Amino acid sequence: MGLDEVSQKPHDRLAAWLAEDMAQVNLLIRERMASKHAPRIPEVTAHLVEAGGKRLRPLLTLAGARLCGYEGAYHIHLAATVEFIHTATLLHDDVVDESERRRGRPTANLLWDNKSSVLVGDYLFARSFQLMCETGSLRVMDILANASATISEGEVLQLTAAQDLGTTEDIYLQVVRGKTAALFSAATEVGGVIAGASEAEVEALHAYGDALGIAFQIVDDLLDYGGTADAIGKNTGDDFRERKLTLPVIKAVAKADAEERAFWVRVIEKGKQGDGDLEQALAIMARHGAMQAARADALAWAGVAREALTRLPEHPLRGMLHDLADYVVERIS
Amino acid sequence: MGLDEVSQKPHDRLAAWLAEDMAQVNLLIRERMASKHAPRIPEVTAHLVEAGGKRLRPLLTLAGARLCGYEGAYHIHLAATVEFIHTATLLHDDVVDESERRRGRPTANLLWDNKSSVLVGDYLFARSFQLMCETGSLRVMDILANASATISEGEVLQLTAAQDLGTTEDIYLQVVRGKTAALFSAATEVGGVIAGASEAEVEALHAYGDALGIAFQIVDDLLDYGGTADAIGKNTGDDFRERKLTLPVIKAVAKADAEERAFWVRVIEKGKQGDGDLEQALAIMARHGAMQAARADALAWAGVAREALTRLPEHPLRGMLHDLADYVVERIS
Repeated sequence: MGLDEVSQKPHDRLAAWLAEDMAQVNLLIRERMASKHAPRIPEVTAHLVEAGGKRLRPLLTLAGARLCGYEGAYHIHLAATVEFIHTATLLHDDVVDESERRRGRPTANLLWDNKSSVLVGDYLFARSFQLMCETGSLRVMDILANASATISEGEVLQLTAAQDLGTTEDIYLQVVRGKTAALFSAATEVGGVIAGASEAEVEALHAYGDALGIAFQIVDDLLDYGGTADAIGKNTGDDFRERKLTLPVIKAVAKADAEERAFWVRVIEKGKQGDGDLEQALAIMARHGAMQAARADALAWAGVAREALTRLPEHPLRGMLHDLADYVVERIS
Repeated sequence: MGLDEVSQKPHDRLAAWLAEDMAQVNLLIRERMASKHAPRIPEVTAHLVEAGGKRLRPLLTLAGARLCGYEGAYHIHLAATVEFIHTATLLHDDVVDESERRRGRPTANLLWDNKSSVLVGDYLFARSFQLMCETGSLRVMDILANASATISEGEVLQLTAAQDLGTTEDIYLQVVRGKTAALFSAATEVGGVIAGASEAEVEALHAYGDALGIAFQIVDDLLDYGGTADAIGKNTGDDFRERKLTLPVIKAVAKADAEERAFWVRVIEKGKQGDGDLEQALAIMARHGAMQAARADALAWAGVAREALTRLPEHPLRGMLHDLADYVVERIS
């Protein structure tokens, strides 16, 4: 199948263009997932790694490196590193959120247990660390160490912000930068660093990943209220039930009248939820245009991402990354 | 207070000799534990870090570096790194084992929750990773990355070996090397590496930490059956209730007659435990001299540790490490 026959989704075009690199990434992932002594490790990780995730983060690393003319082999290591960090985060998130579904399958901690999720996540973190050591680039390690700290800081912040109606859009942005954008931006940035790109290019790659990650997470949070379970493998209303302060809720709370505020206090702060409350929340958000406003924010971040690309070399991959920024928002409509 | 007035315990002598370094380590730990955005992080870690743990691992790193004549400042970073990894492991272990007490205090996951333990543990792993990056030594990072992978592999192996009466002493040794000795040996080894010690010395430091860690863990497992809750802050019989195959149990199972074997199958494999079963287990182990045999193994490993020290330079710290190897076993008697 030629490239022109490939589906027009930017993510698929990116995957097709980088198919050879990605095949090597997948090989490396399978190789490093193995454990001679603890066969449960690949059992647990295979569940997630083979589940047909979008592989968006490793694609970003590969694209960043190739876009900057990289001809070496370490972008493969870095792409695998990034996917391992992501998978480890998902495993630990499963323990944390007690969410019942992930990518349309039962989560690891329902198939196995919390213990396995925590420890196998730790194993993947350690493996990712070994992989990046192999590149011999201190700068790459520094970027990924900082991203790892920002990710867990964001997750802890999300934990303490949950159920707190005082959560502002600024705090939300900090959480999103931590839990999602930090890995997106590190993924694109290390691609440029390993390619020996200029400082301006490395910075542009970072800015692209950061803005793309924010747009992506805002849309993910919107999908949690509006998407279908088929499309995202997650039950609508999970965030509502977990009393998370995501952007559309924050926007609706900011405009709430006394009666609406009492509703939010009951369902989010006190956690007293019953039949019809999710529908009620959706109706209140619709009344204030909260979903549309959040979608507009996501579009603005996609614009920031596209703008960052103008500071990068002309390249077919640049066009695909450009379209990808629009696509992460369009997938909601 | 002069050195001569200090208690004669080798651990205390080590701490007194390295007091200035250790004060810097503690400062660095407090500084890096902080999180501007997520105040829950120091809340959770302070609980463990300030709980008056023995700080044995960072002392080993400092001793390794000083013993090899190090005059720089990065041994402080590495000692803090090692303590952060250890603390992260404890936090994740708390989630895992549902143990009720750790170091004589309620565990973090009873004071807070599983979520905080997992995420704050992740944060400390990331922080440790940042700290070691600052040393700029790829070799040090490689050693610690490998140790991290071995630790989580050992924990997963322990998980799958639990409740399995087929667990051999070899498997037990693998588990112990993972969950304990890997960090001990990495702690001593990176001290030598940062000091620019010879290959033979680095190898000797590794061998010392490995053997010390094994002796330490065997004794810890013995204390779980024989120590007092005061001495170790852990309730006697925790491992029994969690159906862990530790060395004295493995030795007793190997010598079990039919009736005893039925007992072990019931309490360990099937987990049907009632009043008097712990006492019964202790009586069976006593009948076969299982505790004494395990203690003899620990003494043999202490001997291996002492032997490794002969390949290191003459130094007052070498004498203290020598005595420490005996002490980790003696604390049981």
